Amino acid sequence: MKNTIITISRQYGSAGRAIGHQVAEKLGLECYDSQIITKIAEESGFDAEYVRQNSETTSESGFFASLTGMDLYTFSNRDTIWVLQTKIITELAEKGPCVIVGRNADYILKDREDTLHVYIHADMDYRADRIVRLYGESEKSPMARLQEKDKRRHVNYQHYTGRVWGTAQNYDICLNGGTIGV
Amino acid sequence: MKNTIITISRQYGSAGRAIGHQVAEKLGLECYDSQIITKIAEESGFDAEYVRQNSETTSESGFFASLTGMDLYTFSNRDTIWVLQTKIITELAEKGPCVIVGRNADYILKDREDTLHVYIHADMDYRADRIVRLYGESEKSPMARLQEKDKRRHVNYQHYTGRVWGTAQNYDICLNGGTIGV
Repeated sequence: MKNTIITISRQYGSAGRAIGHQVAEKLGLECYDSQIITKIAEESGFDAEYVRQNSETTSESGFFASLTGMDLYTFSNRDTIWVLQTKIITELAEKGPCVIVGRNADYILKDREDTLHVYIHADMDYRADRIVRLYGESEKSPMARLQEKDKRRHVNYQHYTGRVWGTAQNYDICLNGGTIGV
Repeated sequence: MKNTIITISRQYGSAGRAIGHQVAEKLGLECYDSQIITKIAEESGFDAEYVRQNSETTSESGFFASLTGMDLYTFSNRDTIWVLQTKIITELAEKGPCVIVGRNADYILKDREDTLHVYIHADMDYRADRIVRLYGESEKSPMARLQEKDKRRHVNYQHYTGRVWGTAQNYDICLNGGTIGV
């Protein structure tokens, strides 16, 4: 099997994005990251920041939907984003060898034989330190920011893929960014 | 951080044991595998085969215990095996650099800084083919054998560690033995 397409899934602050870009550079491959957001924005008409915010959550109508069952019959903006994300990532993979960071590409491309699926995680302390250094302080504590991001990605992944985020079985290689390093 | 102790956790048939032995050989380290079973047998007085059978399950009294709550007050042979396993693996790690295959060593040594925890998994088809080649046919189908082993290890690991078996976060490196190869 030739692995010509590498997907990098990563925990927030785990250095997964940096690793993805370095791998792409070393292998001379295109690295798709925020370009996917831009493409979804172009094709949907949504603002790029709106896409970014909403591509890692599911519908907020959970409680209402659970009372009414309406979620079965409605197609949310987030569902539109998911459909476009699936289409765009599938098309990028068709174009040729590349590295794709995030956006559940591991699941979207799970049936392609020529992929190598990588997951990067790290301990909370390492990630907390990293997000403050890279993205600065905010009103929320680093731990609260990590917990919120983890929860959003976990719920979004499970909602759209039916899988549990961070299960080793879904990837060819999983690495602890904190102990292995960039 | 210096990683002088490598633990290899693995799915049945994933080539994890073979990888562990090769890593140890390349690095010139002692590799502990079935010796741990032998040591538990020596210290407990149980037969080695009994230890092997019972070191990957929890109490069979589940249903009875759930009715009576007796599990809270009894200490089973399996609990004895777990306690000895913990003691022996801790002592082996104290002796110096080594590779330890299986036996939940990732959890037992989780608080040591000088460890590298590795998890090897593989697809069902790869593992089914491998166990038939290595261990021969049996009355049960290869798939049934894999499912039984997976379930036993999963339940045993969760019972004694409180963790979910195969969660990437518990390891420094996870590899798909089927796509990465021995």
